[in-house]
Amino acid sequence: MYTIGIDFGTESGRAVLVDTRDGREVASAVHQYKNGVIDEHLPGSDKALPPDWALQDPMDYIEVLKQTVPAVLKQSGVKPEEVVGIGIDFTACTMLPTKKDGTPLCTLPEWRENPHAWIKLWKHHAAQPQADQINETARRMGESWLDLYGGKISSEWFFSKALQILQEAPEVYEAADRLIEAADWLIWQLCGVETRNTCTAGYKAIVQNGTYPSREYFAALDPRFADVVDTKMSREFAPLGSKAGGLTDQAAAWTGLKPGTAVAVANVDAHVTAPAVKAVKPGQMVMIMGTSTCHIMNGDSLQPVEGMCGVVDGGIIPGQWGYEAGQSGVGDIFAWFVDNAVPPEYHEAAKAAGLDLHQYLEREAAKQKPGEHGLIALDWWNGNRSVLVDADLTGLLVGGTLATRAPDIYRALIEATAFGTRIIIEAFEERGIAVNELIAAGGLPEKNAMLRQIYADVTGRSFRLSGSSQAPALGSAMHAAVAAGVYPDIAAAAEKMGKLKDEVVEPIAENKAVYDELYREYKILYDYFGRGQNDVMKRLKQIKRRARA
Amino acid sequence: MYTIGIDFGTESGRAVLVDTRDGREVASAVHQYKNGVIDEHLPGSDKALPPDWALQDPMDYIEVLKQTVPAVLKQSGVKPEEVVGIGIDFTACTMLPTKKDGTPLCTLPEWRENPHAWIKLWKHHAAQPQADQINETARRMGESWLDLYGGKISSEWFFSKALQILQEAPEVYEAADRLIEAADWLIWQLCGVETRNTCTAGYKAIVQNGTYPSREYFAALDPRFADVVDTKMSREFAPLGSKAGGLTDQAAAWTGLKPGTAVAVANVDAHVTAPAVKAVKPGQMVMIMGTSTCHIMNGDSLQPVEGMCGVVDGGIIPGQWGYEAGQSGVGDIFAWFVDNAVPPEYHEAAKAAGLDLHQYLEREAAKQKPGEHGLIALDWWNGNRSVLVDADLTGLLVGGTLATRAPDIYRALIEATAFGTRIIIEAFEERGIAVNELIAAGGLPEKNAMLRQIYADVTGRSFRLSGSSQAPALGSAMHAAVAAGVYPDIAAAAEKMGKLKDEVVEPIAENKAVYDELYREYKILYDYFGRGQNDVMKRLKQIKRRARA
Repeated sequence: MYTIGIDFGTESGRAVLVDTRDGREVASAVHQYKNGVIDEHLPGSDKALPPDWALQDPMDYIEVLKQTVPAVLKQSGVKPEEVVGIGIDFTACTMLPTKKDGTPLCTLPEWRENPHAWIKLWKHHAAQPQADQINETARRMGESWLDLYGGKISSEWFFSKALQILQEAPEVYEAADRLIEAADWLIWQLCGVETRNTCTAGYKAIVQNGTYPSREYFAALDPRFADVVDTKMSREFAPLGSKAGGLTDQAAAWTGLKPGTAVAVANVDAHVTAPAVKAVKPGQMVMIMGTSTCHIMNGDSLQPVEGMCGVVDGGIIPGQWGYEAGQSGVGDIFAWFVDNAVPPEYHEAAKAAGLDLHQYLEREAAKQKPGEHGLIALDWWNGNRSVLVDADLTGLLVGGTLATRAPDIYRALIEATAFGTRIIIEAFEERGIAVNELIAAGGLPEKNAMLRQIYADVTGRSFRLSGSSQAPALGSAMHAAVAAGVYPDIAAAAEKMGKLKDEVVEPIAENKAVYDELYREYKILYDYFGRGQNDVMKRLKQIKRRARA
Repeated sequence: MYTIGIDFGTESGRAVLVDTRDGREVASAVHQYKNGVIDEHLPGSDKALPPDWALQDPMDYIEVLKQTVPAVLKQSGVKPEEVVGIGIDFTACTMLPTKKDGTPLCTLPEWRENPHAWIKLWKHHAAQPQADQINETARRMGESWLDLYGGKISSEWFFSKALQILQEAPEVYEAADRLIEAADWLIWQLCGVETRNTCTAGYKAIVQNGTYPSREYFAALDPRFADVVDTKMSREFAPLGSKAGGLTDQAAAWTGLKPGTAVAVANVDAHVTAPAVKAVKPGQMVMIMGTSTCHIMNGDSLQPVEGMCGVVDGGIIPGQWGYEAGQSGVGDIFAWFVDNAVPPEYHEAAKAAGLDLHQYLEREAAKQKPGEHGLIALDWWNGNRSVLVDADLTGLLVGGTLATRAPDIYRALIEATAFGTRIIIEAFEERGIAVNELIAAGGLPEKNAMLRQIYADVTGRSFRLSGSSQAPALGSAMHAAVAAGVYPDIAAAAEKMGKLKDEVVEPIAENKAVYDELYREYKILYDYFGRGQNDVMKRLKQIKRRARA
């Protein structure tokens, strides 16, 4: 028996056809979204979108279904009747307004030219004024849920975006019978049943213990917003791994699968990765490492951990508290460095060695012992997500001498992100949530052996790698297997289908001792610049904004 | 009437033949030292010198006389009898042991293979243990002169080097009838008279108010060192601009000048620059800007200014207190950046624009308004000379984002050195020594218009440039003119022969306001990292040393 998992990313969707017995990935296919990230103007229009907007076209998602599922069937030779379930994961919060029957407003001629009728992608950042209002109002009213989101709701999240629609396009808000996560909308398209998955509801729509913020709270934001939940959303939540419904005839026609095939409830790309790497027990921290890092971990109790992104009951695995934290800059800091601060001689040497520049700098930096370059960085080139939740913090490098060279700085930046992860781990442990091991997914840790060792040495924890390079799609296929009844629960599916590489990177005691010293220095700088002792970074940003105005 | 000034640098000597009426530079010639900086092994030997050694060969200086003076005579067509005086300036402290008649020990076969018999160049840094002992002993004995050198005697200075000879090669110390600055030694070779110029005696040999440290102090360093002054030096000092003697027949033969031609007392390269740029009055701060910056200024009273290199009565101009301060990294920080942190695209763009990389980055950075890049740096890539006097401090950059580009950092580094100069200015003004204007010499300020404006804006003071690109040699020619009696004193010579460019860069009020804000931030970081609140820079250096051991 097989299942199909589809991972809907920012630029494309990727389907993987998986053998449910052992998680073997039999076939995979990718489809790029035709309209991609819509951030300049709407398709067919030349009217410029305002800054910080990022939209998507729901028909691009449907096209992924039509292209990739038939492709994996064909590639694998697996027959449609051998496919028992389908599951998806998505970027989040990525949300849209629809009519009662699920028709996206942006597909209707009368709304097509209104940007608010389209899908607001996760990285749509134009709802910051609404997020500010949401946070101020919550603080003023003493809303208890705020602590469970690190004290701050992001402009990226559901109610920030919904409130932006209401305030800037009340006519769209009015016309929308439903406001829904794109993930849940697509499940609706697949099986005809509207569901709200526990994961996005909890992390993105402030659902705690099955309950949204109060009607009074929403009314305080805007009287017209008082009933947003009851008029446009739902108070029923579907646990992860449950079956949303069976494939409709129409969706069967799109995909080439059999009508009635089990459709699992939707999930978020980061969170669905946990079972794909067998991380279903408390204390196993999964790091999805790319341009940024998302930390996902189960815990057996509810604690307001400083600066986490959120904690949700059943947010990762039903029956456990799912914690999420993150670092807003990781791979993109290394990319910034490689693109903007490495002199030609290293480019040439890398070329001569047949390596890309990352590989070459890694090779050179790996020759050093910890502490040898004499540098420390604060990894805040893209702000700080956990635990400071502060986008106005910036990067710092200390220790430069006339003998400092590019591999020194490259290594210091990687170490800085490892120190940042250790800060997050310690924030969990301060609340009694143990972090026992690290499991990483993503191309970054896969490619860079020095990074793996540094993370192990800095955190003093063993470091393992995902066995699949398509872990989110694999995780979705696992949820599909549970929804189809192949496994009783996600833990059982993870046991058989989850995959870890054999390599276990263990901390080296001698290195750890030096990194303990360096981490103390990092932490002093972290607190000094990050916790208000010296707000120079914020003041520099203000001066910069004024200079550019 | 003409005079000749010769500037003895680290790698070469440069003579300029000058018209005493107006300072016009009629001819100039350079001669590279054959043995240059001797830091690997002695000439004719393959025995490696220890680390941090830097020696020179006295015969290289004589060769400069033989080559350059005839060359400028020939070039200019000026007759020997029209040349009324000759003056020199030198790096310092650059010192050597000689016999009673001035014969350098290193020219004698029996001493030729002993490195301690050679000239210790200013940047010979192997006498740090002796400098440490000098400073500890002075602090323990409460020596009052220590404050007049910023609280620390450098390993580069006279007694550090002399004590190293005594401790490491007592036989050389024993054989040396004289220990003398190379500057004074060369004057001795020119006119047969041993002099000790006020400038090097004051700044490098701890002479204050005509007096060395006490016999008891020297005895405390080493009993054998008790009589170093009376047995191997002199307690007579020759004021700057005075005549040391007349050219000997031998020196006349070397140079092609007339025997008896006036020979001025020697001087130091930085200090001799002041009159060359007409800076003979209190409050005119001369900045000799190259890899590092030397700040030279006259004051009308004696004050222990924090972290200055030294204050000497008549150290620049007879009758005034000559102050010296400095920044240990300026041009070499910009060079470090350009060589080690600028990506290929800028190298290519500079090439396409027909500019060198400094010029190109300046052009791009000059498009910005103050504060626009959002960065602040601490200019400590090569430690900090004034006012912290701490070689273990290191460079810092704060404010990096994913949008930070090379011209941003280049500008921030230039600004950081300007902030460093402002710190020095304020240290003077805190003691009531006014700093009214800045006058710069050196290729760095000459080439970089943005730098000139930034220094004016940051310091709030007008900024002028030396009118000569060979200001030290011109200054020496001016001292020769005074020694020859063409002018009654250096101030009068400066009036006629000193040269400033017409351009006066004035601070722009709007820029200054922003830089005042940024300087406040710089100062907070300066004090935090430089004055013991967070000694992370020193700890990183310790960890680095351990890692490399």
